Amino acid sequence: MSELRIGVVGAGLMGADHIIRIQNRINGAIVTAVVEPDEGRAKSAMENAPAAKWYPNVEAAIADKAMDAVLIATPGQFHEPVLLPALAAGLPILCEKPLTPDAASSLRMVEAEVATGKQFIQVGFMRRFDAGYENLRSLISSKDQGELLGLHCAHRNPSVPESYHNDMLIFDSVVHEIDVVRFLTDSPIETVEVKHMKRNSNNHSGFSDPILVLLKTKSEVLATVEMNVSVKFGYEVKTEAVFENGIAEIGRTSGMTTWFNGQISTQEHMSFKTRFAAAYDSQIQRWVTATKQGKIDGPSAWDGYLAAAAVEAGVKALNTGTLQNVEYAAKPDFYK
Amino acid sequence: MSELRIGVVGAGLMGADHIIRIQNRINGAIVTAVVEPDEGRAKSAMENAPAAKWYPNVEAAIADKAMDAVLIATPGQFHEPVLLPALAAGLPILCEKPLTPDAASSLRMVEAEVATGKQFIQVGFMRRFDAGYENLRSLISSKDQGELLGLHCAHRNPSVPESYHNDMLIFDSVVHEIDVVRFLTDSPIETVEVKHMKRNSNNHSGFSDPILVLLKTKSEVLATVEMNVSVKFGYEVKTEAVFENGIAEIGRTSGMTTWFNGQISTQEHMSFKTRFAAAYDSQIQRWVTATKQGKIDGPSAWDGYLAAAAVEAGVKALNTGTLQNVEYAAKPDFYK
Amino acid sequence: MSELRIGVVGAGLMGADHIIRIQNRINGAIVTAVVEPDEGRAKSAMENAPAAKWYPNVEAAIADKAMDAVLIATPGQFHEPVLLPALAAGLPILCEKPLTPDAASSLRMVEAEVATGKQFIQVGFMRRFDAGYENLRSLISSKDQGELLGLHCAHRNPSVPESYHNDMLIFDSVVHEIDVVRFLTDSPIETVEVKHMKRNSNNHSGFSDPILVLLKTKSEVLATVEMNVSVKFGYEVKTEAVFENGIAEIGRTSGMTTWFNGQISTQEHMSFKTRFAAAYDSQIQRWVTATKQGKIDGPSAWDGYLAAAAVEAGVKALNTGTLQNVEYAAKPDFYK
Amino acid sequence: MSELRIGVVGAGLMGADHIIRIQNRINGAIVTAVVEPDEGRAKSAMENAPAAKWYPNVEAAIADKAMDAVLIATPGQFHEPVLLPALAAGLPILCEKPLTPDAASSLRMVEAEVATGKQFIQVGFMRRFDAGYENLRSLISSKDQGELLGLHCAHRNPSVPESYHNDMLIFDSVVHEIDVVRFLTDSPIETVEVKHMKRNSNNHSGFSDPILVLLKTKSEVLATVEMNVSVKFGYEVKTEAVFENGIAEIGRTSGMTTWFNGQISTQEHMSFKTRFAAAYDSQIQRWVTATKQGKIDGPSAWDGYLAAAAVEAGVKALNTGTLQNVEYAAKPDFYK
Repeated sequence: MSELRIGVVGAGLMGADHIIRIQNRINGAIVTAVVEPDEGRAKSAMENAPAAKWYPNVEAAIADKAMDAVLIATPGQFHEPVLLPALAAGLPILCEKPLTPDAASSLRMVEAEVATGKQFIQVGFMRRFDAGYENLRSLISSKDQGELLGLHCAHRNPSVPESYHNDMLIFDSVVHEIDVVRFLTDSPIETVEVKHMKRNSNNHSGFSDPILVLLKTKSEVLATVEMNVSVKFGYEVKTEAVFENGIAEIGRTSGMTTWFNGQISTQEHMSFKTRFAAAYDSQIQRWVTATKQGKIDGPSAWDGYLAAAAVEAGVKALNTGTLQNVEYAAKPDFYK
Repeated sequence: MSELRIGVVGAGLMGADHIIRIQNRINGAIVTAVVEPDEGRAKSAMENAPAAKWYPNVEAAIADKAMDAVLIATPGQFHEPVLLPALAAGLPILCEKPLTPDAASSLRMVEAEVATGKQFIQVGFMRRFDAGYENLRSLISSKDQGELLGLHCAHRNPSVPESYHNDMLIFDSVVHEIDVVRFLTDSPIETVEVKHMKRNSNNHSGFSDPILVLLKTKSEVLATVEMNVSVKFGYEVKTEAVFENGIAEIGRTSGMTTWFNGQISTQEHMSFKTRFAAAYDSQIQRWVTATKQGKIDGPSAWDGYLAAAAVEAGVKALNTGTLQNVEYAAKPDFYK
Repeated sequence: MSELRIGVVGAGLMGADHIIRIQNRINGAIVTAVVEPDEGRAKSAMENAPAAKWYPNVEAAIADKAMDAVLIATPGQFHEPVLLPALAAGLPILCEKPLTPDAASSLRMVEAEVATGKQFIQVGFMRRFDAGYENLRSLISSKDQGELLGLHCAHRNPSVPESYHNDMLIFDSVVHEIDVVRFLTDSPIETVEVKHMKRNSNNHSGFSDPILVLLKTKSEVLATVEMNVSVKFGYEVKTEAVFENGIAEIGRTSGMTTWFNGQISTQEHMSFKTRFAAAYDSQIQRWVTATKQGKIDGPSAWDGYLAAAAVEAGVKALNTGTLQNVEYAAKPDFYK
Repeated sequence: MSELRIGVVGAGLMGADHIIRIQNRINGAIVTAVVEPDEGRAKSAMENAPAAKWYPNVEAAIADKAMDAVLIATPGQFHEPVLLPALAAGLPILCEKPLTPDAASSLRMVEAEVATGKQFIQVGFMRRFDAGYENLRSLISSKDQGELLGLHCAHRNPSVPESYHNDMLIFDSVVHEIDVVRFLTDSPIETVEVKHMKRNSNNHSGFSDPILVLLKTKSEVLATVEMNVSVKFGYEVKTEAVFENGIAEIGRTSGMTTWFNGQISTQEHMSFKTRFAAAYDSQIQRWVTATKQGKIDGPSAWDGYLAAAAVEAGVKALNTGTLQNVEYAAKPDFYK
């Protein structure tokens, strides 16, 4: 196959960013379709994709045989109506997280994929492609410092829009740690509990952060997650791993160091776009390369479902203040 | 007053260390009495204190007018029988932590001190004299980064002796964070809860660590404490403070950096003796200087009592797995 | 233009690496020709470039219209016989450093390019594409910390092959700093002087390192370069910039930090391949993108000539132990 | 001996600082005499030394048997007239650097001391008591990273007073590195050369800095010293050591790290007073302790002479722009 013809569904911030990425930095792919009901937004994004054609819905693009693979970049609640026809058409899919907003619908996606007899869906948990998480996972599986006992995660944003509400702390933000904790430990999350730190007055009235989420895996690793979306200084995502014989930490920024005005300083990130730029590139490049070989090379629909189930328990934990057990369906042989 | 004549009670590891400190590094003090039932141990420690006389018990030293002030360095369960006669004799006291092992006896010490009409007791929470904690406290009270919302503490030892048992995780180790959290926040701890991380197989059979302790202050600051006594790599005590607008961290070691064998490295501490050497020196120097002026300059008996009450709730939290409220007696006007 | 068809000249380590890069990570380019006299070596490299055809010399590839652009990755002494026919054929060229091994031949290349009436040649000083050097250059030109006064550079390799000899310290290694100092200061190097540090016994007998090279620019910035090719620990390239009001440093590695065996450590690079991997990718991507637009986007043949002249003076400085002035031809209007 | 009675000569900034140090932080010493022609200045400094008596000159204090040891804290040109009577009186002396301002007078001091038959003089090169330099010296002598090949030193001040003039770059500032390079390498400095960086416009008109000083030891170690007294950001003294198999660096500040306003920062020093506070304390404590045992425990008069000889060559190198050999008298057996 020469260039993989990609249809990008959703031309908002995330979709437009992916179009630029594919057109300018990714080897072996080209954007040939932009699926977006809002024609103006579609046309604006298509300025960076001269070979792309506009389609108001995915069915039209499929009917037109406009693409070899689909990248879904719409908000989570709109994923199912794109996933189903794309699966039916036998198209490889990279679906931005979450797979779908709740466990039941995610399980339906899993079942729909199983019914096709082949894995088509990869879920956009891009942290798995960040060098830090990859290195930490290798250290864990090497057992060079003994067994992993615990993880301390911090996930800090300078601010969020007014539309961001309480439950999004879990399903939009902590969802990353929910996936990453399982990725690092290779063990499902069994319980979720949420504690409140003192409320940050930078918050808009709709919600209360920061929170501390306690995740316990089946393998008895306790992960703490400080989820913090109003801590002005910048954007920081880090993880400290506690082993039997040592400690490891990922996520410290680096770069130019300056001595100025009595301070020795390094620049911190202000957004996930710079913090995870390399991870996004790597995710898409590896997806394109694998797709051309008929494979997936990243988190599966089943991973998406597991995250959705833990998120659902997390939201309940946030709203009730109590410890929640996470219930999972049995894993289909298909994903083994 | 010329040199403050100090009687050191207890000539074990801690007492012997304090004797060397006072004799070699502290201005304006001299060890004139060593109180220790074991004569051999006393004599050995006295090799570093040529002006000191040996006493088998504190009453004998008091009767002999052998000292102007008392430094108590015995294990916690032996503090009360030294504190009471020293108070009765009107001697200034620096008492190693804990004041006493439980809230009831600590409250008795408070009452005994109140009855004398003057503050004589300082408790050896030496972290308050560490430059890191002092700087962090200043930053908190400055509100330069907004209100303090939470604290993440890690307290890590390479190993502990066989005699170390489960409850000591709280009353011997976490007790430091219990005092420091109040010192940093100026607010009492209201609730304590304990979670288990995966058990470290380096542990001897008597107990299970690491643990995660959750402390919530009256001011709603949530503090997490990873208490870890078997994590071979070294000794580390650090605190990360989460503010409304920024983050601060203390406790990273520094020193010579080496590039060798593909690694860029800095030496980590292996013991509290090096990590807090300067804090111990500063604590004793400031106590000596203040004592000569008839003052105390450090945590009071009341601070010792508050810690004892929170420790008692912490031990219960550890043993029951449930959240515990901490109950305190009313604060005497005497300490205001 | 769809995909830029690239002919790679030289299929040694560097050429093979570039082939993999273009085929797997670069957008909009494809390797269609491999020019290499050694057929076995060519065929081995071509396993990663299924669309490429083998040519024993560049003339054959040109005659066959096998490529739209040329990437020259042979040793420096073989550049001229490739550059001349490629220029004659009007092909855009990315030529690995050095342009040619000496000032006279580099000036001939400049004149040959000027004669064509258009810029075709970009020289592979890839450090200009490293984020650290880009950030430092921005800081210098911003004058946020005042004027730049000096630079301290260190360039350290764990080892070099037996074939590496004394003059290569300058023309193969320091050549990078020679280009970078001018890139950072926007001022030509006027004098070069070489001092010897104590000889490293890890050296093979053929030469003596480390050396300290002193470069002074026309703008009076003094740059020190520690050139060190036998310092086993790893590969490190860093620059410290001294301004009127502050200091900046680039080149510290980062990544996962581990606490283990009493040391807090970060992994150091062992080779330029990892240290400058992102710079190589960025250099090639930007060259491909610019080439398709008929432009060059990097150091020119004139930059290559200036480096060659300073290198020649540097070799003389190394061999005589005296300060050398660097003489340059007048800059053609063509490059203004 | 009980408390060592110290006479402080000179009650300027440095002398006043030493008085506070001895009275408040040093064990086993007391200031009993302040020798200072300016009575007002003397009385002001004596507010911190209640047991001290004022003397307008050292002869008067000696005649009065006012002290057991002398600490000389006047400017260097006034050292000789204090050293000679103090030596004659058989008093142990801690003499702030330099021993005297030039090699000839320093050699006279050496000869005067040799004539007494006993070592009385210690010179105040306090960097030898800094933990960083001590650790680096241990690493060098351990040969754990192979032989030492070179040193890169930076000595940076935010500003200097109008009275600071050109030669002081060497005799007041670089003199520290001159002593430290010999201390680290255990080898005398054989040649000195001075290069100019671009002039800092923060300088007052009287002189031109920063400079780069090249020191070569008899053992062939090349040391570079960036001497910089107008680089506003703060005060920094660091050394990077280049070994056969690795690198080591001392002098990075540490302390509380803050994340704020998009920067991760640590506070830098603004003065030698904080940077070397612990070294000054350690120097005086060890001098007091050794003096009571009739010994010296630090750099000798001979060390002071060697530094003076190298400084003299350094000033000539600065003023002539040429490489200078350093000439030394033969070392008296007395110092072996």
